[in-house]
Amino acid sequence: MARDVFHDKVRHALESDGWTITADPLGFSFDLFNLMLDLAAERVLALERGTEKIAVEIKGFGGISKITEFHAMLGQYENYRSALELRDPTRQLYLAIPDMLYNTFFQSELVQYTLKRNLIALLVYDPDEEVIREWIKP
Amino acid sequence: MARDVFHDKVRHALESDGWTITADPLGFSFDLFNLMLDLAAERVLALERGTEKIAVEIKGFGGISKITEFHAMLGQYENYRSALELRDPTRQLYLAIPDMLYNTFFQSELVQYTLKRNLIALLVYDPDEEVIREWIKP
Repeated sequence: MARDVFHDKVRHALESDGWTITADPLGFSFDLFNLMLDLAAERVLALERGTEKIAVEIKGFGGISKITEFHAMLGQYENYRSALELRDPTRQLYLAIPDMLYNTFFQSELVQYTLKRNLIALLVYDPDEEVIREWIKP
Repeated sequence: MARDVFHDKVRHALESDGWTITADPLGFSFDLFNLMLDLAAERVLALERGTEKIAVEIKGFGGISKITEFHAMLGQYENYRSALELRDPTRQLYLAIPDMLYNTFFQSELVQYTLKRNLIALLVYDPDEEVIREWIKP
């Protein structure tokens, strides 16, 4: 499936979960380049606790090797988190990955260690049902 | 220049600087995959302070966008550092980058912030002279 197919699936899953999409994509300008994060969304919290704001970087299941793909998504996550710290510090970044990827490659020893070490927040989605399966925040 | 041209240049620069190359590449096995780091080297320290051990991941200056390349190298660095923490914890990981890249793209606001935030150690090399210009350890 093409990248934008996964994009739409995650967007639908967030909307079904009660989120309002506020940017698609979410852009930031820096001195030498611009960054585009895939989605921004927000949701009003119960009991007057305000609004929860997230940014989501969406990954499908590409053709290159899983470890190469993992390095690319990990580097994006780290750099986008830096961008949010500088420009939009109350927004939590999530990496959206399909449940099949989470249940296989992401269970490996080193990937699990790196996710915890680097405090990577995951949104695990089911691309067939277009629903969110799990929010994992270390 | 092809990737292995930069590889040889950094290897020569390290040897000129008094390092002994101990692995080329340095491999680690994990449950679902193997990792190959570009180089391992060591050097005897003065005054009986033992041996300094490093691993070096070598980057040239590829054809894809610099920000995409930066994400790939950042993700590799983070995951390889995790691998060293688990399997070879006294070895310091360096990301080797050409001086031209360090003096331009790497000076941008967000890249500098991310390098400090993520404690990335850099080895800046001159690919023409095949010498090390700077060791940068945050």
